[in-house]
Amino acid sequence: MKVGFIGLGAMGQHMAHNLHDAGLLAGVWNRTPARSAGIPGRCYGSVAELAADCDVVVLCVSADAAVLEVIGALIPALRPGALVIDCSTVAADTARLAAARLAEVGAEFLDCPVSGGVEGAKNASLAIMCGGAPAVFERAQPVLAAIGRTIVLMGPTGAGQATKATNQILCAGVIEAVAEALAFAQAEGLPLDRVIDILGKGAGSSWYFVHRAPYMARGAFPAGFRVALHDKDLRICREMAARHGATLPVIESALADYARLRAAGHGDEDISAVFRLKTPLFAAAEPPARD
Amino acid sequence: MKVGFIGLGAMGQHMAHNLHDAGLLAGVWNRTPARSAGIPGRCYGSVAELAADCDVVVLCVSADAAVLEVIGALIPALRPGALVIDCSTVAADTARLAAARLAEVGAEFLDCPVSGGVEGAKNASLAIMCGGAPAVFERAQPVLAAIGRTIVLMGPTGAGQATKATNQILCAGVIEAVAEALAFAQAEGLPLDRVIDILGKGAGSSWYFVHRAPYMARGAFPAGFRVALHDKDLRICREMAARHGATLPVIESALADYARLRAAGHGDEDISAVFRLKTPLFAAAEPPARD
Repeated sequence: MKVGFIGLGAMGQHMAHNLHDAGLLAGVWNRTPARSAGIPGRCYGSVAELAADCDVVVLCVSADAAVLEVIGALIPALRPGALVIDCSTVAADTARLAAARLAEVGAEFLDCPVSGGVEGAKNASLAIMCGGAPAVFERAQPVLAAIGRTIVLMGPTGAGQATKATNQILCAGVIEAVAEALAFAQAEGLPLDRVIDILGKGAGSSWYFVHRAPYMARGAFPAGFRVALHDKDLRICREMAARHGATLPVIESALADYARLRAAGHGDEDISAVFRLKTPLFAAAEPPARD
Repeated sequence: MKVGFIGLGAMGQHMAHNLHDAGLLAGVWNRTPARSAGIPGRCYGSVAELAADCDVVVLCVSADAAVLEVIGALIPALRPGALVIDCSTVAADTARLAAARLAEVGAEFLDCPVSGGVEGAKNASLAIMCGGAPAVFERAQPVLAAIGRTIVLMGPTGAGQATKATNQILCAGVIEAVAEALAFAQAEGLPLDRVIDILGKGAGSSWYFVHRAPYMARGAFPAGFRVALHDKDLRICREMAARHGATLPVIESALADYARLRAAGHGDEDISAVFRLKTPLFAAAEPPARD
């Protein structure tokens, strides 16, 4: 099995290294060729050159348009029966469109968005949410096992992206709750470290509370999960919900906050930076009386 | 140390039993005397009778007015230097008012709202968030250790209630996020058990996602944390936030949903019943295309 990798971003470069370590990587292509430096394997001169040399192509790019552009460039050059695995986070409809185009030339497709961040990409411990036919999922196992740890087939094409979108909605709602609650605690004059310690063990807790409330308490928001990236993902979620006629308050609240954060130059901070917008809500002159 | 217990509700009856098992309980009083049946120790005929016989009085009642009413009834009869421990969930201001009234007659006060539910009350594994002077907190240790496991002094009087309010805001925001995200997943036709399994391990996870999304997937919402009770707690949070000039979106969204649930007769269900309101958002005629 010869695997080509496209998209050497913050996640992709680690995934390519792990495919190399598993003895699967034939080579890579990246829009910005400089990114390919230091990546083991061949450095292809074009998407078509990579397609012609590989049985399996893995993508990890940044947006729906980029996925469809790469698919378009792959199609004329793909080997018969090639498999394309898309690890980008895009709309379920984009996955379905990519799968349909590839099917026309006899190629297979699996949508495989990941979660676990740069750390998970580095340690090959990503969670991979897959959408596609069971036989295609089976065929992709050696590749997915080289980059991730929890690998689940969620349903037909698009189901991987729909699962990732569900996760992004959860993150949006939870970070808003954590930021508001912690801003309240701060306004009440509570010692935030002790609040995080005791409430982190209870029913109000969440991954974001345990791992990101400390950022809020310190007032520093190193990325993390960047506001600009979650903003992009939530726009995908918004469009997917709109296809069902739904407007989701959780998505809309977070997008409104992210617009304000980006306008203020905080788009590259972790999403826990929404705390910046919550503390000013507590603007009353009179603090609570203390004994 | 002779401890009297007031308020034998779902939580209080277990707490009284645990105080008895620790050899601390002198007796109990309850507004509805029938509730005292089966509780070990004396069954006092009035709050004043209990006050006259005990060094420490523990309250666990349902609302701010009830706390102040009991404090009013205790005051004329309390022993010199008595300690009143209030485990009810009420406003921080109510705690400060109770402490001030008791101080006038030389009695001490500790606000000690708990979390951990009926299960935690039964197993003496409650988290107890305390507000008061360090010396009073120390004095209360034998009593608190008999009913809880994680016992933390959060600050001066009212700080326990402020911490509990922070927790209730977290719960409100998280349950909304979980309900919306799961309604989205359902509309996308995803297998909810697998969604809960994979996303429950990731950064979007929370106690409520892991423990209550399965209720949503089954469409059954056994209490749990009752809507009517969280509604009461969130009204306290709303008033506390208003004292700082703040209106918190998380509180307002949940209260609007709880009003709808109560009007529809679901006030005694677990708060995960907000899922009932989220699925109808997905009303479009056209489901996503499937391959």
